[in-house]
Amino acid sequence: MTQNYDVAGLGNAIVDVIASTDDQFLLEHNIAKGVMSLIDHYRAQQLLQVLPGGRELAGGSAANTMAGLASFGGRGVFMGKVRDDRLGQSFARGLEAMGIDFPTRRASAGPQTACCLIAVTPDGQRSMNTYLGACRELREEDIDEAAIAASTVLYVEGYLWDEPAAKAAIEKAMRIAKGNGRKVAFTLSDPFCVERWRSEFIALLKDQIDILFANEAEAMALFETEDFDGVFQSLRSFPGIAALTRSERGCVVAAGQEVHVLDAHKVPRVLDTTGAGDQFAAGFLFGYARGRPLPDCGRLGTLAASEVITHYGARPEKSLRALAMAAELL
Amino acid sequence: MTQNYDVAGLGNAIVDVIASTDDQFLLEHNIAKGVMSLIDHYRAQQLLQVLPGGRELAGGSAANTMAGLASFGGRGVFMGKVRDDRLGQSFARGLEAMGIDFPTRRASAGPQTACCLIAVTPDGQRSMNTYLGACRELREEDIDEAAIAASTVLYVEGYLWDEPAAKAAIEKAMRIAKGNGRKVAFTLSDPFCVERWRSEFIALLKDQIDILFANEAEAMALFETEDFDGVFQSLRSFPGIAALTRSERGCVVAAGQEVHVLDAHKVPRVLDTTGAGDQFAAGFLFGYARGRPLPDCGRLGTLAASEVITHYGARPEKSLRALAMAAELL
Repeated sequence: MTQNYDVAGLGNAIVDVIASTDDQFLLEHNIAKGVMSLIDHYRAQQLLQVLPGGRELAGGSAANTMAGLASFGGRGVFMGKVRDDRLGQSFARGLEAMGIDFPTRRASAGPQTACCLIAVTPDGQRSMNTYLGACRELREEDIDEAAIAASTVLYVEGYLWDEPAAKAAIEKAMRIAKGNGRKVAFTLSDPFCVERWRSEFIALLKDQIDILFANEAEAMALFETEDFDGVFQSLRSFPGIAALTRSERGCVVAAGQEVHVLDAHKVPRVLDTTGAGDQFAAGFLFGYARGRPLPDCGRLGTLAASEVITHYGARPEKSLRALAMAAELL
Repeated sequence: MTQNYDVAGLGNAIVDVIASTDDQFLLEHNIAKGVMSLIDHYRAQQLLQVLPGGRELAGGSAANTMAGLASFGGRGVFMGKVRDDRLGQSFARGLEAMGIDFPTRRASAGPQTACCLIAVTPDGQRSMNTYLGACRELREEDIDEAAIAASTVLYVEGYLWDEPAAKAAIEKAMRIAKGNGRKVAFTLSDPFCVERWRSEFIALLKDQIDILFANEAEAMALFETEDFDGVFQSLRSFPGIAALTRSERGCVVAAGQEVHVLDAHKVPRVLDTTGAGDQFAAGFLFGYARGRPLPDCGRLGTLAASEVITHYGARPEKSLRALAMAAELL
C-alpha cells in the first residue's frame, strides 16, 4: 500500500558545505566571488580539504522545496541521485529527518555525491562551487512509478535537464504523472539553464507542464523579452498556471484569464536570498495540493520566501505551518 | 471654428506658494508638519503675510496633468475657477505659457483665488495649507461645451466632487463628453475624498467613467479591501480601463481581460513624490488620446512620473516629449 503524497520532487541531490572565509581565501584558492561555478571531482576534493570547518546541509533546489513543503505539514517524496558515500548518507538523513521519503537507490559505483561548496565572506556574499557528481547519473530506472502515481503534483527542477539520461527520466516521470491524472510542475531554475534549453523548455510548456515557476530573469530569457510585461503577455497564452516571482515586487499568478498580482510579505531585513524561489514553490505547491484558491497559493509562496531570506541558508528555520496560521492563510 | 484637443481637464485651480522655512516657523505659526490641511480665507491671508519670499507656481492636480500633457506636445484645455485677482492672473499666465487654453471666466466677486501654501523644511518635508476659495465656486455655466466636444478625453479630478454646484458642473461636462462620443477619465485624487464620496464614486464608475486613475491607497479605500489583489479583482468587473499606480512597483493597467503589469522607471534618487500621480495621468492620457496601445500608455505614464519625483514641485522640468523619444516610446 502506497502513502499519498502532496508533491513528488525530482531534482539534483546536493549537499551544501558552507564555511566562513575571508576574501584572501577566495584569492588563494582561485574562487570566483559571488557566483556559482561548476567544478569537477578533482577541484571538489581539493576545495573540500582546504575549506575551513564547513557545515553540511542537504541542499539542491527541488530538495529545498520538499523541505519547505514538510515545514508546512505537507507530505513529500524526493527522487535524486546520490552515491553510497558519506555525503550521500548525510543527504538521505537530512531528508528523512524532515519526514520526506527518498526511495532513490544509492549508486554503489561511479561519481561521488554532489556537493556545493559555499564560501561566505564577511560582506555576506556567497561564492559557490558545485560538483554535480552522482546527480548526473539519474536515469529512467530511478523514477519511482508508485510514488509519482500517489502524488498530487510532480515537481521537476529545470537544472536536471542537462543529461540525455536525466531528460529520459524526467519524460518518464511526466508520462506517469499524466497517466495517473496528476499535475506536472516545472521550474526554469536559472537563466543560463534556459539559454541552453530554450526550445525544449518551450516544447515542454506546450505539452507537459501544468504549473510553471519562473523568476523574472528566467522568464525573460525564455521568451527573449526585455521587460516583465512582455513575459506576462507571452505566458497568457500558456494554458496552465504561471507563477512568476518578482523579488521585492511579490508575484503574479496567471491561469488563463484569471490573474492575481500579489505583493511580497514585508521583512525587516533581507540577509540572503538563496532559496527564495525554492521556498516560494514550496508554499505554492502546498496550497495547490491542498486545493486552496490561486491567490492563497501565491500568498503561501511569498510567505515561505519571506522566511528564508531573513537568515542564511536555503531552507526554512521557522515552522512555515505556524507562520501561515499566524498570517491566517491556513 | 474650435481647435481639437487631446484632453479637456476639469479641476481645482490653485496657485502653489512654496517657501523654505525651518521647524521653528511651523511651530510659531501652528502649521501641522508633513500633511495637507484645509484653511479658510483669514488663515490664508495671515500665512501669506508671514511666509518668507514664496515662489508662485500654477498648481492643482488636473492642472498639473495638463502641464504634463503640454510637455509631451499634447494639446489641452483646462476648466477651473479663479478670481480676477493677482493669484488668478498668475494661474492663468502659468497655463497660457504652456499653451494650455483656459476659457473659464474669472470671477469678479466672491472668494479669492485658491492657494496652497507650502512650507518646505530642511528635512525635505512639505507642510501644506490649502485655501480652496474661488475653486469652490465652479458651476454649470463654467463648463465650455465646445471645448469638451472637441477633446478626445475629458479628465476630471475627484477633489472637485465636494460642492453640489461643482458636482452638477462635472455631470454636465460628462454628459457633453458622452453626447459627443468622447471618453471620460476620472481620478480618485485622495483616500479621504474617496471616504467622503464612496457610493457616489462607485455609481460614477458604473455609468460614466471610461478610464479610472487611482493609486493603491485610493483604490483600497474605494473597495474597502486590504491588499492590492483585492482592488485588482474588484476592478476587473469594471467595463472601462483601470490605470492603477503603485509607486515604486510601477502600475497595472486593466481593460476587461487585457491586463498589463508595468514596472516603474528606475530613478537615481526620489526627491519629492508630489505630482507623481498627476504626471502619470498626463503620460497615460497623452498616449491614449494619440491612439497608443495600453502598455505604451502606461509606460508614458510611469516615464512622466519618474521625471517629476526627481525634483521638487509637481510639474515636469524636462521636456517629457524628449524623454519619451529617448525611451523610444514616441
